[in-house]
Amino acid sequence: MMRKLVAGIDIGGTTTSYVLADSEGNVLADGTMPTCGFGSFDEYASVLALRIKELSESLGSVHSLVAAGAGAPSVDFAAGEIVSAPNLPWKGRLPLSGLLSEYLGGIPVCADNDANAAALGEMMFGGACGMKNFLMITLGTGVGCGIVAGGEIVHGERGMAGEFGHMAYERHGGRQCGCGRKGCLEAYVSAKGMVRTLSALMAETHEDSEFRNLPFNAIDASDIASAASRGDRLALETFRITGRILGEAVADAVAFADPQAVFFFGGPTASGDLLMSPLREAFRSSAGPLWKDNVILELSSVDAGRAAVLGAAAMAWKKHSMRPHIGEN
Amino acid sequence: MMRKLVAGIDIGGTTTSYVLADSEGNVLADGTMPTCGFGSFDEYASVLALRIKELSESLGSVHSLVAAGAGAPSVDFAAGEIVSAPNLPWKGRLPLSGLLSEYLGGIPVCADNDANAAALGEMMFGGACGMKNFLMITLGTGVGCGIVAGGEIVHGERGMAGEFGHMAYERHGGRQCGCGRKGCLEAYVSAKGMVRTLSALMAETHEDSEFRNLPFNAIDASDIASAASRGDRLALETFRITGRILGEAVADAVAFADPQAVFFFGGPTASGDLLMSPLREAFRSSAGPLWKDNVILELSSVDAGRAAVLGAAAMAWKKHSMRPHIGEN
Repeated sequence: MMRKLVAGIDIGGTTTSYVLADSEGNVLADGTMPTCGFGSFDEYASVLALRIKELSESLGSVHSLVAAGAGAPSVDFAAGEIVSAPNLPWKGRLPLSGLLSEYLGGIPVCADNDANAAALGEMMFGGACGMKNFLMITLGTGVGCGIVAGGEIVHGERGMAGEFGHMAYERHGGRQCGCGRKGCLEAYVSAKGMVRTLSALMAETHEDSEFRNLPFNAIDASDIASAASRGDRLALETFRITGRILGEAVADAVAFADPQAVFFFGGPTASGDLLMSPLREAFRSSAGPLWKDNVILELSSVDAGRAAVLGAAAMAWKKHSMRPHIGEN
Repeated sequence: MMRKLVAGIDIGGTTTSYVLADSEGNVLADGTMPTCGFGSFDEYASVLALRIKELSESLGSVHSLVAAGAGAPSVDFAAGEIVSAPNLPWKGRLPLSGLLSEYLGGIPVCADNDANAAALGEMMFGGACGMKNFLMITLGTGVGCGIVAGGEIVHGERGMAGEFGHMAYERHGGRQCGCGRKGCLEAYVSAKGMVRTLSALMAETHEDSEFRNLPFNAIDASDIASAASRGDRLALETFRITGRILGEAVADAVAFADPQAVFFFGGPTASGDLLMSPLREAFRSSAGPLWKDNVILELSSVDAGRAAVLGAAAMAWKKHSMRPHIGEN
């Protein structure tokens, strides 16, 4: 008997991750590829589809790829298109579901905001099991938020709800953001935002740091995490500031959405308490009395940071189950 | 034949409004009473119930009051209780539905956040007819927000979603708020927030104003509206600042919820474009490219500012219809 599989895809600003998963969420194979460096979005999609097909074939002919789901920044859920995502190399509307389906031999493909995919993954396979109201905050090249209210993902009118990274952190005179405005949260707590904070600290203090001998463009958030684990004071201070800013911003999101829990997902969360301790402390001082001691603030508990790809796989299974099963292997 | 009626109630920080309405939302009678000046919440609830009973009796014995719905600040929807509302004279949890039901002879009573009631009223009888994703912002003693996503009111885990007035407008060194923190939006754009802005303008400028001869505590937002209509420059500037701050804050709420429209309801909205022009202008400069020209920003279009009481009446009809109709007239 053919064993059905789906592909779950997470398209980040830097890296694209994908898994092949069965209907219980077991990962049979996985891979990554860079998101940048392709001549066009069409070329990127064709290479991604080829990688997934090859990975599927490597599992042997007993497996059949029946659907795919993709999480990406700024996805219009209804259209399956990426809509002018400031953190991706391509501009305008990108027909993500359409192209992937074409290059994957016509199987159904659905797409959603990466934060919504991660929220779905957390709800099905992680710490949000059984929860009806929670937020899933994704940190990386961008900063997103999956909103679950009454057990359902909140998509909004254009499928663009949860643009947490483009809420104002500094209203007046803040840092330039990739979206063209100033002061957005993303300019402070994204991966590049952390590098900017480190750079500002080098300007403001005399504190010694290994980063004083590196150019700005050569530093990324994972370097700051490594340096912090070695005790670099400016790296540690960068995590304290990032956690504090996030905690303050989360207090606002909580006042608006009244969630039971807020989960955090993505690169900088690998440093655990370096980020979460100042985040929790700032949340407690910033949140209203109803929430300051009553909202669960936790890292995503899906294995190996797989909330987004597994959520995307879960979307693919849902899409597959809604399709008329005629003439299918 | 008995004609069934429900009571719709809107409990504001200063005034309580109520209507008796039929199932089509026609108002047969209405009234107001002060919210403050009672010895206890129990006394307030008994007087409110008496007023409603007398109003109902004044319509003649052909009418029968079958249910009531109440909108109030900080209501826990599931419990029907007001939960430590900073803008009401009573503290702690107040059994709103329970007491009103008792004093109204045991008819079913439901309660929700006033902003949710107003959102429901706008959806049933106003500009949000047919909309699935919109926000209803209520301005008055407090500042609230009803969130409708996918056609449903977002209540949140504790029934407290939409605490828009307690999101940070100024993160550091902002105005004291009634909730005990600093910088909340409510400290800037509530009725008292407008008086505070006027007071700050008197401090910062030499501009003449009729308010320079009045004590702070003698001024309310409606005085500022009247003075603005007479051309008082500081009153006009107060509206410009209030509209601008609201527009900036609404841009953040829109990035989070991605609504089709945002409606505005409550006292200061009676001044129309004095508030809405700077609000729209600030929204256009603050909102992201997806939203700046694509979100409807309008005053509530329910007659005579009745979105909240009519929404509360609609809740009452819903509650009535869910009750087993045994032994009823």
